[in-house]
Amino acid sequence: MSDEKLTPQSENFSEWYNQIVLRADLADYAPVRGCMVVKPYGWALWENIQQALDKRFKATGHVNAAFPLFIPMSFLEKEKEHVEGFSPELAVVTVGGGETLEEPLVVRPTSETIIGYMYSKWIRSYRDLPILINQWGNVVRWEMRTRLFLRTLEFYWQEGHTAHATREEAIEETMRMLDTYYRFAIEEAAVPVIPGRKSQTEKFAGAEMSMTIEAMMRDTKALQSGTSHFLGQNFARAFDIRFLDQNNELQYAWTTSWGLSTRFIGAIIMTHGDDQGLILPPRLAPIQVVIVPIYRDDAERSLVMPVVDRLEQELREAFRVHVDRRDGVTPGFKFNDWEMRGVPLRLEVGPKDVEKNSVALARRDRPGKAGKSFVSQEGLTQTIADTLKDIHQSLLDRAIAFRDSHIHDVKDYEELKQVVEGGWAFAWWCGSAACEAKVKEDTKATTRCIPLDQPGGAGRCVVCGEPATEKVYFARAY
Amino acid sequence: MSDEKLTPQSENFSEWYNQIVLRADLADYAPVRGCMVVKPYGWALWENIQQALDKRFKATGHVNAAFPLFIPMSFLEKEKEHVEGFSPELAVVTVGGGETLEEPLVVRPTSETIIGYMYSKWIRSYRDLPILINQWGNVVRWEMRTRLFLRTLEFYWQEGHTAHATREEAIEETMRMLDTYYRFAIEEAAVPVIPGRKSQTEKFAGAEMSMTIEAMMRDTKALQSGTSHFLGQNFARAFDIRFLDQNNELQYAWTTSWGLSTRFIGAIIMTHGDDQGLILPPRLAPIQVVIVPIYRDDAERSLVMPVVDRLEQELREAFRVHVDRRDGVTPGFKFNDWEMRGVPLRLEVGPKDVEKNSVALARRDRPGKAGKSFVSQEGLTQTIADTLKDIHQSLLDRAIAFRDSHIHDVKDYEELKQVVEGGWAFAWWCGSAACEAKVKEDTKATTRCIPLDQPGGAGRCVVCGEPATEKVYFARAY
Ligand SMILES: [Zn+2]
Ligand SMILES: [Zn+2]
Repeated sequence: MSDEKLTPQSENFSEWYNQIVLRADLADYAPVRGCMVVKPYGWALWENIQQALDKRFKATGHVNAAFPLFIPMSFLEKEKEHVEGFSPELAVVTVGGGETLEEPLVVRPTSETIIGYMYSKWIRSYRDLPILINQWGNVVRWEMRTRLFLRTLEFYWQEGHTAHATREEAIEETMRMLDTYYRFAIEEAAVPVIPGRKSQTEKFAGAEMSMTIEAMMRDTKALQSGTSHFLGQNFARAFDIRFLDQNNELQYAWTTSWGLSTRFIGAIIMTHGDDQGLILPPRLAPIQVVIVPIYRDDAERSLVMPVVDRLEQELREAFRVHVDRRDGVTPGFKFNDWEMRGVPLRLEVGPKDVEKNSVALARRDRPGKAGKSFVSQEGLTQTIADTLKDIHQSLLDRAIAFRDSHIHDVKDYEELKQVVEGGWAFAWWCGSAACEAKVKEDTKATTRCIPLDQPGGAGRCVVCGEPATEKVYFARAY
Repeated sequence: MSDEKLTPQSENFSEWYNQIVLRADLADYAPVRGCMVVKPYGWALWENIQQALDKRFKATGHVNAAFPLFIPMSFLEKEKEHVEGFSPELAVVTVGGGETLEEPLVVRPTSETIIGYMYSKWIRSYRDLPILINQWGNVVRWEMRTRLFLRTLEFYWQEGHTAHATREEAIEETMRMLDTYYRFAIEEAAVPVIPGRKSQTEKFAGAEMSMTIEAMMRDTKALQSGTSHFLGQNFARAFDIRFLDQNNELQYAWTTSWGLSTRFIGAIIMTHGDDQGLILPPRLAPIQVVIVPIYRDDAERSLVMPVVDRLEQELREAFRVHVDRRDGVTPGFKFNDWEMRGVPLRLEVGPKDVEKNSVALARRDRPGKAGKSFVSQEGLTQTIADTLKDIHQSLLDRAIAFRDSHIHDVKDYEELKQVVEGGWAFAWWCGSAACEAKVKEDTKATTRCIPLDQPGGAGRCVVCGEPATEKVYFARAY
């Protein structure tokens, strides 16, 4: 970490983001254009995201597996919308073992096709359904404009792929996984996402219906943070995924897919971070509590360190704890460093604390004196557990307040155009792609989602004035 | 699972292996030549291997990170031996986003080069050392003859990459990770590997010294199960990984790399399996205890199932438990099925067991009556914990006995030639590549390792009769 100040969010949000990713040691640029190196601190955050999600997937009956990285080009071509959506973004292997391949292999941009092929081999009867498989892995999409975590050529994610006997079950699964993402975002990441449906224009290439969770970043832009797709029978027809039903008749299966990626790290950074750096939600933070010993000389040091060692032992039973034992840097430098890295709670132990059997706690979410308190070493585990819980809640409350104060119900098109300059517009929309396209052209804002939570009733499309039955969020997006 | 019998090991070991992988539902063939699909049961086994290793890596101070899948072709060319070793096996991306790339990208066969490049950016001073990073991921090597798990185009592994200030520290790390693999193999997988050094011919392309753990399969062939390489300053020179030492002088770093892959699943299968199927070591088995309810009618069913449910609740606190609730298949079918899948312990509950407050336990490692016992439901958690521990030990003992009875100290070349037909030959070797090559040509056996455990003293090379100071294992290998 250097001593230079971060560019403030208000000055240049994009620059603030780039600096924070590098200086908080989350990731670095790779020597291949558009690729990233996820550094240990960033990867530890991703591992915590993985564990939290994986637990939820397994609790809902899913199992993990691994499908190949390479997909024959011909597979992608079997689903028309799918290949149209992905072909501009493909990385293609044409040479293997020194020879030109007869059929080029695509480095998977997503795995519906190859998994569909395997499911058609595995599924024979209704007894084989549902199949509920998830995969953790890497995928590649040849993006032209890239940003660390937000949009990279290679990224890390999970992709769930399920097959069902009925349309209803598949839709139920689609909604269950949307809800899983929603709860994960709120309960683990304190990111108050809005769940809803994508428009036909914005849906996944090959899906019948795409559901999404959309988050508002601190520059008010939207970030699609996870998606759950009902694929209908599109891939089942393309890959001949059929089963004998209870009446011994051959039926096409109904499939879903759903994914959440390292992009979510971008959502965390831009939902909670401030001008001092990153702020990590306590349940996902690689370090939940950092202990900084405070001493001026060897005498104080020998007073303080035994207490620090004892507290470390005690606290590591319940929390992810790190003691900053660095010599040759001041406590002030250490404070700034851990603030930059977003550790939710700092614990200071100095000679006076030793004397009083206390410690100082400093909350990352409340800078300066407001977030500092002096508490007893007795019952410290409980105090910290309560404080971390409170930090989670306060991050969530703050993000909700920010989001809600930047969402505006708009009455007419003029208001919409103004609102999307610095917020989201919530408006009646007739559902036509033409109206969507006009908004995009005029304002760069797109439909983010038709939220599950609808006011009911009916209105007039904010663009064309035709009758509308649903309201939608328009916003500029990452 | 079909009812057909497995091909016995003694009849066709290779066919036995292929059948078991498919029928125990570990993996399937992918539609791309040489690639595999790791099915949920196989992936759960790999996840347990990952967790066991990851814990050991973290306990020895390592952290995880993620480096790109794509490596510029020019990077590989920077280390002469490295590119010679890997270039015949490369998969190459030549097209991205619809355009031909200026510089082709290699799909990583291993990551020394790209990680070396990043380390040269990150390392400035001796204070930045050591760097101790591990990566879990997929790699691609364009193999011509493939076998599920043993040799596939794409495989899954971990690769550790470390950089140190001194030669001694790097060698220490190399040996520490060898020891980590050794302990993991013995303590978690019950695979009695032999740790040792690879010959110059057999070492990793670009390494100064390669260490290995070698296991004997039940057909007596050797399987290299994990490797730890001391890379000297080879990659530091190729990628300019330099640091200012304590005297403010620029020095090249010393690096290591070490890896263990999904190949290890092959080692587990071929170390423990028998003619009934897979036998999984208890500490890694996805299902440690399978409960099979036994009943002939609804009355018995309603007697048995509440006890099964209660035991499941109780046991899942301590073990990975699965209850086979399938209707329409006989208990006998279920027994065979779980034997095929290698579950270490089967627990049966029938009406008589309910009456007597007992259960029947059947050990997978001892087929038939020898492995069956009737135990009280009281203290069942402890009984099972003890039994699983005993199964681990008995699998290990059996594998050691098998291994040791198939290793022969050979006195002359004639004996060596005979021994490697059905075992390993342990012999004095002068260290020359010519003698190694002669053995390989005459017998297909290669030097597997120069074990750490040496008899001391000196002898005469079993091939050429020249003086020799070390003994080596010669064996045919996977
Ligand atoms: Zn309209
Ligand atoms: Zn010789």
